[in-house]
Amino acid sequence: MSILINGQAESAIAVTDRGLQYGDGLFETIAVINGQCPLWDRHIRRLKQGCDRLSLTCPDEYLLLEEATKLVSNNRQAVLKIIITRGTGERGYAYPLKSHTTRIMMCSAWPEFPVENTQTGIKVHLCATRLAQQPLLAGIKHLNRLEQVLARNEWQDKTIAEGILLDQDDNVIEGTVSNLFLVNNGRLQTPDLSLSGVAGVMRDLILEQASGLGIKTEIRKIRLEDVHRADEVFVCNSVIGIWPVVDIQNQLINVGDVTRELQRAVSCFYV
Amino acid sequence: MSILINGQAESAIAVTDRGLQYGDGLFETIAVINGQCPLWDRHIRRLKQGCDRLSLTCPDEYLLLEEATKLVSNNRQAVLKIIITRGTGERGYAYPLKSHTTRIMMCSAWPEFPVENTQTGIKVHLCATRLAQQPLLAGIKHLNRLEQVLARNEWQDKTIAEGILLDQDDNVIEGTVSNLFLVNNGRLQTPDLSLSGVAGVMRDLILEQASGLGIKTEIRKIRLEDVHRADEVFVCNSVIGIWPVVDIQNQLINVGDVTRELQRAVSCFYV
Repeated sequence: MSILINGQAESAIAVTDRGLQYGDGLFETIAVINGQCPLWDRHIRRLKQGCDRLSLTCPDEYLLLEEATKLVSNNRQAVLKIIITRGTGERGYAYPLKSHTTRIMMCSAWPEFPVENTQTGIKVHLCATRLAQQPLLAGIKHLNRLEQVLARNEWQDKTIAEGILLDQDDNVIEGTVSNLFLVNNGRLQTPDLSLSGVAGVMRDLILEQASGLGIKTEIRKIRLEDVHRADEVFVCNSVIGIWPVVDIQNQLINVGDVTRELQRAVSCFYV
Repeated sequence: MSILINGQAESAIAVTDRGLQYGDGLFETIAVINGQCPLWDRHIRRLKQGCDRLSLTCPDEYLLLEEATKLVSNNRQAVLKIIITRGTGERGYAYPLKSHTTRIMMCSAWPEFPVENTQTGIKVHLCATRLAQQPLLAGIKHLNRLEQVLARNEWQDKTIAEGILLDQDDNVIEGTVSNLFLVNNGRLQTPDLSLSGVAGVMRDLILEQASGLGIKTEIRKIRLEDVHRADEVFVCNSVIGIWPVVDIQNQLINVGDVTRELQRAVSCFYV
């Protein structure tokens, strides 16, 4: 793994960093294809939204691009993780009005997922862990990820590729590392994320691409019954792309035409 | 500040540590008085409860004591922070069944709070930030602290010593760094923390001491009206002890006899 911390080739940060002390920061997980980050602008846009929400000063985007380029330019396929924290500070939750952020860039090997995940689809686990509702943190990709850690460790069965999370009010929200979509009577539906969840870069791209293809899209409350009644179900993120869901709670679902059309549409961004 | 990481005098951890990546860990903030940690056993007990909840292997308590003693034995008054994380791991939320925890010990200067906080009491801010409800994480002192960061930074006014947090259902839960108690008709009341909040070591000590003094105690739902109607209000933690609350939303409250009696009772543990 290659790592840059504030532009320097290092691999350790101060224990006083607020990223460790409080999870006071944000991250992005970015696909690298042929030495480029195809969805770079979208990731930076979400990072800035997260910084606004947490009153963090976002590092200059050209500096981020320069450092990212240094790390990824020789990689045919890799994953770049950017972490931005509120830097080191005095003891306590209060932060100085002008804090210096820590920027961490980590470039690691592309995960070799089975090609079947994309082609024939995946089996998912329904997580017992429920997401809390917190509008102040919903949507952004912050460093407080204990819910995801608990949820992901509910299953060890390697034939299960993802877990689906509901919130405390029985709304279906997302996967542990992905967003969720349903197709119902030709309409593309994805959960409202104003109270829980991470608004993924791939989720946004899919919503845009669907509109361009003339597919009606809806961001709405989704219940477990909706998933079971759906014609098509899939999960997505910017590294895995789109994986059809074909098995949830022993109910089998076919891979449908809308899923295939959207897989083709987003794959164009990854060449 | 003196720091030990896994027993070594170091001050940096790997960026791959899950404590930074996901906030996957716990902490304790411990008062050091005359080279000793008077509430050590209680802190270790809570740390173990947190480890159980997160399926973390708690480091051996004698090892923790040995390392803590190294750091604190020459300090007349200091604060010891222990952080336990799930260590470094592969990319992703899944953790190995046998992961090696990282243990961090940080000994820092005692914060010089105004003596008036203890004697004449404090003014508190009512936070707009609401705590999410998450029974899987409630009670334990985990590293996902963005809610507290947001809440603490709602005010800059130095005459305000603490902020009071409600949950999403209008229940009063705690302060940003403290637990809350009310005295109502001679009964000592403190919020139920089964859905949100941190069950403080000082909170437990106060509940025990009150019972010993023949004061009736209740752990229950508390609403803002209950705080406004209370005869006495105070906040507590193991570093500040007990601070009477005398001003909340411009309502003035007297420092009462039960608060004074409990201040005397817990101060005996700090000599």
